Amino acid sequence: MDKVEIVEVGPRDGLQNIGSLVPTAAKIDFIRRLAAAGIKRMEIGSFVSPKAIPQMSDMDEVVAGLGPLPGLRAMALVPNSKGARRAVAAGLTELIFVISMSEAHNMSNVRRPVEASIEDFRLTLAEIDPDKRLHIRVGLATTFHCPFDGVMDEEQVLRTIHKIARLRDGLEFALSDTTGMALPGHVGRVARRCIAEFGDTASWAFHGHDTAGFGIANVLAAFEAGVACFDSSAAGIGGCPFAPGATGNIATEDLAYLFARMGVATGIDLAKLMDAADLAASFSDTPTGSHALAMPRARLLSPNGVAAAC
Amino acid sequence: MDKVEIVEVGPRDGLQNIGSLVPTAAKIDFIRRLAAAGIKRMEIGSFVSPKAIPQMSDMDEVVAGLGPLPGLRAMALVPNSKGARRAVAAGLTELIFVISMSEAHNMSNVRRPVEASIEDFRLTLAEIDPDKRLHIRVGLATTFHCPFDGVMDEEQVLRTIHKIARLRDGLEFALSDTTGMALPGHVGRVARRCIAEFGDTASWAFHGHDTAGFGIANVLAAFEAGVACFDSSAAGIGGCPFAPGATGNIATEDLAYLFARMGVATGIDLAKLMDAADLAASFSDTPTGSHALAMPRARLLSPNGVAAAC
Repeated sequence: MDKVEIVEVGPRDGLQNIGSLVPTAAKIDFIRRLAAAGIKRMEIGSFVSPKAIPQMSDMDEVVAGLGPLPGLRAMALVPNSKGARRAVAAGLTELIFVISMSEAHNMSNVRRPVEASIEDFRLTLAEIDPDKRLHIRVGLATTFHCPFDGVMDEEQVLRTIHKIARLRDGLEFALSDTTGMALPGHVGRVARRCIAEFGDTASWAFHGHDTAGFGIANVLAAFEAGVACFDSSAAGIGGCPFAPGATGNIATEDLAYLFARMGVATGIDLAKLMDAADLAASFSDTPTGSHALAMPRARLLSPNGVAAAC
Repeated sequence: MDKVEIVEVGPRDGLQNIGSLVPTAAKIDFIRRLAAAGIKRMEIGSFVSPKAIPQMSDMDEVVAGLGPLPGLRAMALVPNSKGARRAVAAGLTELIFVISMSEAHNMSNVRRPVEASIEDFRLTLAEIDPDKRLHIRVGLATTFHCPFDGVMDEEQVLRTIHKIARLRDGLEFALSDTTGMALPGHVGRVARRCIAEFGDTASWAFHGHDTAGFGIANVLAAFEAGVACFDSSAAGIGGCPFAPGATGNIATEDLAYLFARMGVATGIDLAKLMDAADLAASFSDTPTGSHALAMPRARLLSPNGVAAAC
């Protein structure tokens, strides 16, 4: 593959794990800088209960304040039909639902079995999108590893994805390494099977974290398996609030740098992306897990990794 | 492969990049903790000019203070014949020489062309080890990427390695990603070629840094190519002094965790290794690049990545 898509998730997965409230204007600035850097698709936030995640309580203001951003596909995460209705009312046409592949994690997240989440997803789709006009992404949390059950069984995960995929053609699935502890071999095997078993009826993204340092290796494993869409967050913000900083999402600038060095097009202007990463890093007091942010900027931006003395 | 060797380089590559002098007793404690964790081979330091690297000025005291450590192969880096003589006089039987694959980097490091370094290596070997009793490792700096010349040409690098290998059978070569900016595909290709072209006449290690976040991906690429020996430093200390912390060596505990999860034996007790990593982290004020250190300890040490709440 000579090109991939990088989907920015910082304004949602990143910010929701930052304790202090980021002002609405800063969120809008963040999203605009990302779009200016060439990000074409972005999770701009989630329509959740403000009690559950106070950071997302200004979603309507963010959407209104942004106004039209030509060329940017804005996605929002919705936890249920109520959130989905709010998102559609706000004018969004791309929604993300999350279903855990692990019973224990789904129970912990939304207090119901996986089957019940799939049924709720079916009912919500029928209600909010009977004409199938929306782009629907399903985040498959704990596809590889669950914080409670450990390494996931591939057969069980594939069976669950088949159940969801039967609800509608054209769903996009994000194979998610929620804990950041998936092994690259595991990611490659599952991605290869999904692409082979579902053909053109579904599309695939990989959503990784860098908890154990396997982030880039997992991206490469998914890429080699045929995945061409990757989630990441500027400055690597996000991740588990119990192990801040280094265990967030894979950093968007690390991915952009990787693919640039590999000669794989992303459409991203790395210098402009670093403006967004600098802002993202300022949202949190904890050190970021970004590698590109720690490199001398001149070296990072040179075509061949030279320039700045080292 | 069902087992690999992890060679600890923290007491040399790690400490030499830490500005403040670490007391001799703390160095000895560090080395003993690493050996107690199951490390079987270690770069314990370098016999260099104390003016060049003050951190290594107590090498003789470290060696004397350590006394015999049964089961540990102690290696020392030597920059020239003078250092080699000192190392042999101190009782060491395993020496490491460094030759850069890039002319610009060799010139910057030792102020002479690569050919002159190879000739000096030949003369030094003849002088200090005429009976070929020592184990000799050659660190091939900038095998993949040079801070001045950028990405290295594979053909040129292979030609240079052939010139060195002709000097003696049984040399061990460490393919070194000195800047931490090698791409995994590049590492895999070069490692595969070396193993194929040299057969049993030489052995191979991979020495990586994690500057760009490619560290674990590069280790996996070398492993898949057939390399079974990997350098790393506890807590990921070391690396370029101009970009401290996150850009040091790959962390030993990250490698030990990776291989444990993959079911590849290393002989390392991860819990005991974390004692050494905690000590290593305390040597420096800058945040470490270690992922394992940032994870909840109970989760890290559970067989399946579960246990601690997250």
